Amino acid sequence: MSNEIKLTPAFLEYLEECLEQNRLPEVLQNIEDLHAADIAEIIDRLDVEHGRRLLSVLPKTRSADVIVELDDEVRQLLFEEYSASEIALDIIGELDSDDAADIIAELPEERIQEVLDNISDEHQAREIAELLTHEEDTAGALMAKELVKVNKDWKVMRCVREMRKQAEEIEQVHTVYVVDDDNELLGTLSLKKLLTTSTKTPVSEVYHPSVVSVNTDTDAEEVARIMRKYDLVVIPVVNEKNQLMGRITIDDVLDVMAEEAGRDYQMASGLTQDVEARDNVIILTKARLPWVLIGMIGGVLSSRVIDFFDITLFPEMALFIPLIAATGGNVGVQSAALVVQSLASEGGFKDTLGKKLLKDLGVGLLTGVICASVIFLVSYAMGYGYNLAITVSIALISVIVFAALFGTFIPLMLNKINVDPAVAVGPFITTTNDIIGLFIYFGIGRIIMM
Amino acid sequence: MSNEIKLTPAFLEYLEECLEQNRLPEVLQNIEDLHAADIAEIIDRLDVEHGRRLLSVLPKTRSADVIVELDDEVRQLLFEEYSASEIALDIIGELDSDDAADIIAELPEERIQEVLDNISDEHQAREIAELLTHEEDTAGALMAKELVKVNKDWKVMRCVREMRKQAEEIEQVHTVYVVDDDNELLGTLSLKKLLTTSTKTPVSEVYHPSVVSVNTDTDAEEVARIMRKYDLVVIPVVNEKNQLMGRITIDDVLDVMAEEAGRDYQMASGLTQDVEARDNVIILTKARLPWVLIGMIGGVLSSRVIDFFDITLFPEMALFIPLIAATGGNVGVQSAALVVQSLASEGGFKDTLGKKLLKDLGVGLLTGVICASVIFLVSYAMGYGYNLAITVSIALISVIVFAALFGTFIPLMLNKINVDPAVAVGPFITTTNDIIGLFIYFGIGRIIMM
Repeated sequence: MSNEIKLTPAFLEYLEECLEQNRLPEVLQNIEDLHAADIAEIIDRLDVEHGRRLLSVLPKTRSADVIVELDDEVRQLLFEEYSASEIALDIIGELDSDDAADIIAELPEERIQEVLDNISDEHQAREIAELLTHEEDTAGALMAKELVKVNKDWKVMRCVREMRKQAEEIEQVHTVYVVDDDNELLGTLSLKKLLTTSTKTPVSEVYHPSVVSVNTDTDAEEVARIMRKYDLVVIPVVNEKNQLMGRITIDDVLDVMAEEAGRDYQMASGLTQDVEARDNVIILTKARLPWVLIGMIGGVLSSRVIDFFDITLFPEMALFIPLIAATGGNVGVQSAALVVQSLASEGGFKDTLGKKLLKDLGVGLLTGVICASVIFLVSYAMGYGYNLAITVSIALISVIVFAALFGTFIPLMLNKINVDPAVAVGPFITTTNDIIGLFIYFGIGRIIMM
Repeated sequence: MSNEIKLTPAFLEYLEECLEQNRLPEVLQNIEDLHAADIAEIIDRLDVEHGRRLLSVLPKTRSADVIVELDDEVRQLLFEEYSASEIALDIIGELDSDDAADIIAELPEERIQEVLDNISDEHQAREIAELLTHEEDTAGALMAKELVKVNKDWKVMRCVREMRKQAEEIEQVHTVYVVDDDNELLGTLSLKKLLTTSTKTPVSEVYHPSVVSVNTDTDAEEVARIMRKYDLVVIPVVNEKNQLMGRITIDDVLDVMAEEAGRDYQMASGLTQDVEARDNVIILTKARLPWVLIGMIGGVLSSRVIDFFDITLFPEMALFIPLIAATGGNVGVQSAALVVQSLASEGGFKDTLGKKLLKDLGVGLLTGVICASVIFLVSYAMGYGYNLAITVSIALISVIVFAALFGTFIPLMLNKINVDPAVAVGPFITTTNDIIGLFIYFGIGRIIMM
C-alpha cells in the first residue's frame, strides 16, 4: 500500500452536505491537507456550483494548482463564471508558463486575448503568447519557459549565485543548461558536478557538451519516444538556430503517452471519442454508435454476399459462416495491431513494405495450414460431409492468408498517407475481412459443392 | 526534428562488414559518440557473435550501460559466453542497484548466487541481494538503493557537505530525503531550498514534512498511477515501519506503463505473448495461434447452434448471421474496453457494480433500439420480408443489450477474482457473444418464422 489519500463516496457525500449548508470552515478543514490532485478529483465529481464553492475556500496559490489538475470539461464549466481578470490574476499568475498556456488555449477564442491583456506580469504574458503560437501536440506547445541556464564563460561560483536567483521563480530544478552569448544550447551541467567542483572552475571545463534536444515543431509522440529511449526526465527544446527555447518535463510526456495509448486502445475497441465509463448514457452511446453502425453496414453487405450466392442452394454452408468471419477478423486485427505497435516503437532500422508483407505471408500460411487441418478433421468428425469439410478448409487458408496481408497492408498504407494507423485496428479490419472472407468462402463453396 | 541519431540499414550493413573483417578500431570510431541506447539498438539487430565483438571494443563503463539497454533476449544470449566473475565485475560493478538486480534476476537460477558471490563490493552485493527478495512487479523490485538522504538534525551546511560525499556515487540527484535517526522517512528537502537558505539553518526548519511514498510491496502499476497522478519524477519506497528503503525514478515507471499499455493492446487484439513485428515467423505464429484457435472453437460451437436450430428450415436466416455476430462482438468489446480503462485510471470514488450495469443497460437499450430501427427499414427495403425483418430487429436489440451487459460484467468479475480484466477484451468477448447472439437470433427466429 502507498500512503496516497483514499477518497470514499461517503467522504464525498459529507462534503456535499457541508457545501450545501455553507459550512465552509468545516470544508476547508477537511481538504486543506490534501494534494491538489486529490482536491481536483473531488471537484470533478461535484456539481459545478458545489465545485466553485469548494474552490473559493482555498487560498489562491492552492486553488490555481487545483484548477490545473481538473478535468478539462469541468474547468471550462467553472471558468464560465470567472471574469478575464480573475483568470489572469488569480490563476494564470500563479502558474508555470506551460500550464498557463494550456489553460488559456482551452478558452473560447474571444476570451484568450482578453485574458492575456489582463496578465499583470508583462514578461509572463509575452512568454505565454509565444507558447500559444506553437501548433498543438508539438514540443513547442508542450514546453515550459521556466528553466535554469548558465553561460559557458561563468565560473561555478557565479553559476550557483545566478541559479539561486533563477531558482526563486522555479518550482523544481531539473537540469542546468549551458548556453553561449547567443543563447545557443551547448550542453548541460549536472548538479552533481556543481556540488563537487571547486567554485573557481569555469563552466566550460566541467559541463557535459552533448545533449539530446528536440525542436519546437517535433511531434509530441516523438518527444515521448525519445525521452523514453534515452531515459530522460527533462528534455530541452530548441528553435531552428539551436537556441534554447524551453524544456519539457516527463510528467507532461506521461500524459501524452497515456492519452496515446488510451486512444489506440479505444480505437481498437471501436470507441470513436475519448470517453470514460463515468460519462453519461447519451455521451457513451454517441461514442459507441458510429462503429456499431459501420459494423452493421458490413453485416448488411455480408447478407448481400450470402444472398448473391443463393444460400438456399447449399444451406449447410451457413453453419461455418461465423467460423470464417471470426477467424478472418481475428487474424486481421492481430496483424494490424502488430504494425501499429511496431510503427510506434520503431526507431532507426525499418523493414521494407515487401519484407513485412512477406513475413505476414509466412505467418498467414503457417497459421492457415494448421487451422485448416484442424477444421477439416473436426468438421468431418462432426459428420458434415467431405465436400463441406474440404470447402471450409480451403476457404480458411485463403481467408487467413488474405486477412494477414490485408491487416498488415492497411495500417502501413494509412501511415504513409499520414492517417493514424491505429484506426485500422478493430471494427474496420474485422468488418472488411467479414465481407471478403464470405466472398472467398462462398466462391470456393460454389465450385466444390455444386 | 530532434537531434536524435538516425540509424539506417546502410549503417548497420557497414558495421557488420567491419565486424566481419575485424576492423575494430573503425567500429569504435563509428560508435563511440553514440548514446548507449543507440548502441544497444544496433546490437539488438546484429547476430550474437557480431554483437559480442562490438561490445568488446567499448570501455567497460560504457559496455555496462549498453548491456542495460539491450533487449532481454539478446542480453541472455550474450551472457551465455560470459563467466560469473565477468558479469559481476565488468557489468554489475558498473551499474546502479536497480539495473544490477534486474539483470541478475534474469539469469538462470543456478548462476544468480554465483554472480552475487563474485561481486567485489560487499555493500553492493548485500543491496542487490535485498532487492532480489522482493516479488516481481512490486515497488521493492523496481526501486534502486542509491539516494541522497540527510538527517533532520543537520544544518544546511552539513547537508551540502554530506550530499557532496553521497553524490560521488550517484549519477543524478533527484530529491533529497529527510530521515530521523531510525531512518524513518520524514519528508523532503528541495534543492531550491538548499540553494536559497542560509547554511546555518537546521534541516528541520526548512524541509517539506509531507511526502507521498509507496511501500515495498505496492504493485508496480499502482506506483505508476500514483506517480502520474501527483506528477512525481521520483518516489520514495518505505518498509512497513516507514523506514526509507529506496526510490523509484520515473524512467522505470515509464517502462512499466508502456509494457502495461502494450499488454492490454496485445490482449485486445488477440496476441497471447509479448511479440514484436520483427520477431520471426515461428514466434509470431505461436503468439497468434492460441486466440485464432479459440476463435475457431467458437466458430465450431456456432455451427452447432445453427445446426441445432436446423438452418434448412429457414435458410434465409443465414443472411443476417454475420450482422448479428459482428454487432454483438463490437458492442461487447466496447463495454469491456471501457471497464478495463476505468479500472486502470480509477482513483478513489468507484461506482458500484449495480450502477455500472444499470448504465450499460441504458446504453445497450438506446443503441439497440436505434440499430434495430435502422435494420428493420433496411432489410424490409431490401425485400427480405416482414418476418425476417422483425426477427432480425428483435434479435438485434436483445443481442446488443446482452453484449453490453456481458461485456461490462466479465472484466469486472475477472478483476474481483484478481485476473487481469484486459484478457476479457478482444477475441474472448467476441467469441462468446457470437455463440450467445446466434442462440438469441435463432431462438427468436424459430418463434416468429415458423
